[in-house]
Amino acid sequence: MSKVVLDALGGDHAPQEVVAGLAMALERKFARPDQVLLTGPRDRVLQELAARGLGAAGIEVHDAPDVLSGDESPTDAMRKKPKNSIAVGIGLVKQGLGGAFISAGSTGTVVAAATLGLGCLEGIRRPAIGAIIHGEKHPFLVLDVGANPMPKAHHLAQYALMGSAYYRGTFDVAEPNVGILNIGSEELKGNPLVREARAMMKQLPIRFTGNVEGVEVFSGDCHVIVADGFTGNVLLKVSEGVAEYLLRQMFGLMKQAGVDGAAMQKVQKGILPRVDFSEYGGALLLGVDGVVTICHGRSRAPAFANAIRFALRALDAEVNRHIVQVARTVALPSAEPNA
Amino acid sequence: MSKVVLDALGGDHAPQEVVAGLAMALERKFARPDQVLLTGPRDRVLQELAARGLGAAGIEVHDAPDVLSGDESPTDAMRKKPKNSIAVGIGLVKQGLGGAFISAGSTGTVVAAATLGLGCLEGIRRPAIGAIIHGEKHPFLVLDVGANPMPKAHHLAQYALMGSAYYRGTFDVAEPNVGILNIGSEELKGNPLVREARAMMKQLPIRFTGNVEGVEVFSGDCHVIVADGFTGNVLLKVSEGVAEYLLRQMFGLMKQAGVDGAAMQKVQKGILPRVDFSEYGGALLLGVDGVVTICHGRSRAPAFANAIRFALRALDAEVNRHIVQVARTVALPSAEPNA
Repeated sequence: MSKVVLDALGGDHAPQEVVAGLAMALERKFARPDQVLLTGPRDRVLQELAARGLGAAGIEVHDAPDVLSGDESPTDAMRKKPKNSIAVGIGLVKQGLGGAFISAGSTGTVVAAATLGLGCLEGIRRPAIGAIIHGEKHPFLVLDVGANPMPKAHHLAQYALMGSAYYRGTFDVAEPNVGILNIGSEELKGNPLVREARAMMKQLPIRFTGNVEGVEVFSGDCHVIVADGFTGNVLLKVSEGVAEYLLRQMFGLMKQAGVDGAAMQKVQKGILPRVDFSEYGGALLLGVDGVVTICHGRSRAPAFANAIRFALRALDAEVNRHIVQVARTVALPSAEPNA
Repeated sequence: MSKVVLDALGGDHAPQEVVAGLAMALERKFARPDQVLLTGPRDRVLQELAARGLGAAGIEVHDAPDVLSGDESPTDAMRKKPKNSIAVGIGLVKQGLGGAFISAGSTGTVVAAATLGLGCLEGIRRPAIGAIIHGEKHPFLVLDVGANPMPKAHHLAQYALMGSAYYRGTFDVAEPNVGILNIGSEELKGNPLVREARAMMKQLPIRFTGNVEGVEVFSGDCHVIVADGFTGNVLLKVSEGVAEYLLRQMFGLMKQAGVDGAAMQKVQKGILPRVDFSEYGGALLLGVDGVVTICHGRSRAPAFANAIRFALRALDAEVNRHIVQVARTVALPSAEPNA
């Protein structure tokens, strides 16, 4: 089912930038109009479509009259406003009307709605949030960046499987290099969780390349980097913080050094995509029965366009089917239910 | 005992850069010649001192004929080469001939030698490695960056105490802001370790400011950031990696954009100290009975000069006496011995 459900009301600049992103995706042929469904308050969304010249494009709009403030807890959002654009969107995927869901709404609410509404893939015990980042040699996928701050070793092993399948499917790399984030290159370094997960990953039908140290994350050869949700989140957020800080300093110093405006712009144009965390559309919720992309709250049109593009690619590549296939062949340690 | 013991043989560029750093420290009046003791193979060190014009400066050299390769495990280093420059240096601090020890040798060996040789400060259960980093508003201290990848909550609370005392003593900030690295700003976010440690830190006689998210680390108001040794190490190493990667990209783009050499040099001169992790001398081993600084293996003269400067400052400020004083007033949870 290669259709994408797009939450028209998610994010700081919704619905304008969401619909602008959709327009961009159509224009760039990332998607056809019949491949996209929108959720949100019907009139408002239709008005926005008309404003972007998409009034007659035949894009399906599914009414979601309950507007989330973004301050609600996931539980409150789902309980008190059941017809919100996230819940309605996930419902469409559940019904099989779409294969993917994209939202720039609250991460917690999307994760809760998708996990409860879609459930986990057969054989997968816990979903993970993956972030795709621009590296020196190629994009890389870090997971988990925050779904589960206290995973067990077999969860990390499943992240490795899922990450490998996702990366292969969307970036066309036959055997992605999968590593585990650690604090040294030696086998025995790290904490017990990492050591146990390493041992499991070695048994998986993936190209497992061992430890990845923090300093190699951006410049090394790994396509997929596995971490617990706490450390992965720190990795992601610290990288963002360092990049913002350094670029502020660099452009300040360039100005002081008298670099002219034209050169500044060229440098800016070259560097910004490299630190743009929306280049590949947003974060992924891997392990649920559907393709779910969570865009940054401050996403603009290009982020939504890219999200549509990569979600369709994941659907076409049948990433989830591959995950289930591999998970079936792997004997994971028996664990208590819900573990 | 305001004397510094300097490992003349530690690091990739020893003894040349170590002795050059000492010469720089003397020239800049960071230290007097009678405040520094050197350890290493006597003749080689004396020769290097002579080469730097310090042959007659009256600097004490303590012979350490066993040369470490850097590949030995800490245990092998201490057992098979007991007269190495690290062991001899720590021995001098233990005997009270110096108050501080500085080495760019293997971190593992320095930590092992210092922990076993000097022991922990009264009331402190586990040492931590602290790194001082150039932030946007001020330098900040992150601890632990790798001494203990699996700490308990009360260890983190002690890191907060130690970090606060060290920062106050060496940077002259009366009440440093102390935060705990977490994956959200809300009180209940994170893992059980962080939540438990937070509750303890609130009771301490420090200015505890709560959670620090990854994105705020470099630009926020915290002077001291507490983390477990695994996450702290990832923070430090990822920051280094991102900085190296981005600067490589930026200078490449500037070149492509035709920025002239003079402007490039100005920018470089401005940015390099900001990403120079040796600006404040190196990493600290906090919690042992002595001031111990571990310089990066690739340290050059300025790093050693700064290490001497900050080590003497920590001695003058009696950082360790303050740590013990505060630790005494704080009822830490009872724990099994060695916990």
